[in-house]
Amino acid sequence: MSLECEYFERIKTHQYGELIGETEHWLIILAPDQRNLGTCVVALKRDEKELSRLKDEEWADFSQLVKKLESAMRKAFNSTHFNWGCLMNSAYQEDPPCPHLHWHFIPRYKNPVEFNGKIFDDPCFGKSTMYNRDPPIKLSSNFKTEIKKHILKYLKLKSGRDDKST
Amino acid sequence: MSLECEYFERIKTHQYGELIGETEHWLIILAPDQRNLGTCVVALKRDEKELSRLKDEEWADFSQLVKKLESAMRKAFNSTHFNWGCLMNSAYQEDPPCPHLHWHFIPRYKNPVEFNGKIFDDPCFGKSTMYNRDPPIKLSSNFKTEIKKHILKYLKLKSGRDDKST
Repeated sequence: MSLECEYFERIKTHQYGELIGETEHWLIILAPDQRNLGTCVVALKRDEKELSRLKDEEWADFSQLVKKLESAMRKAFNSTHFNWGCLMNSAYQEDPPCPHLHWHFIPRYKNPVEFNGKIFDDPCFGKSTMYNRDPPIKLSSNFKTEIKKHILKYLKLKSGRDDKST
Repeated sequence: MSLECEYFERIKTHQYGELIGETEHWLIILAPDQRNLGTCVVALKRDEKELSRLKDEEWADFSQLVKKLESAMRKAFNSTHFNWGCLMNSAYQEDPPCPHLHWHFIPRYKNPVEFNGKIFDDPCFGKSTMYNRDPPIKLSSNFKTEIKKHILKYLKLKSGRDDKST
């Protein structure tokens, strides 16, 4: 099993990050690395390697998710703007590669934000977060659960199936 | 005028990169930095700051563009996979910021590719291109026009308006 297959397996079995919620086609997971508060991975619910092969209804669902997740994050943490990336680079370190379609969602902060007694800043604001060479912040499970609960105060995933995990 | 406003102004007046083609809602521009052969910027044709505010028809048009651009790039240069990013970071170096909605499209290459007598490689394949600290490759206008012409052999933007620049 490649790193990426394993990654999707861990996502599906809730071993990677905290599942925040889901829509019809996508899982929203709080990423383990919270240097930028609210960083998520948004993973397609079926096996797919390429953005080109995304179905119309999956795109439409994603576009609604973008609106809802950005809006929730602004309300929860006063994020300034957001970075979205569909990369799948690490899957190609394996041979054969086994990418699983997912997006990186990184809230960006002009000003430091305080949450649950801790200050989160964004030292590379105005540039890629790849310039941040600080080690990932280690947060306890309880802390990550508090982040998730705070996001869920504002994240309204409407339809019946969408509400499963809220 | 901020850097980003200026950037969009330069895009619209064809001073930034080579315009490769357009769809109903998006411009496809060959980026000045061709360290990864075929790197493009895909910019929305109207003023908009946020991905959240993209209209349904702009998403639908974008999803078709992704399919066509990835397919063309595989045929033109045998790209292995692709990175897509919607960031707008540099706009936030200005106060007030003036982001203009655009995507970065970066073809990734497992193996070096030869085009027009020059070898292009992807030294950070399997990782973010942000790890590549090489200076941008300087290509002549003629060389960039050859890249554009080669992509256009394979890029089929269908509807009437889409074909304007092909």
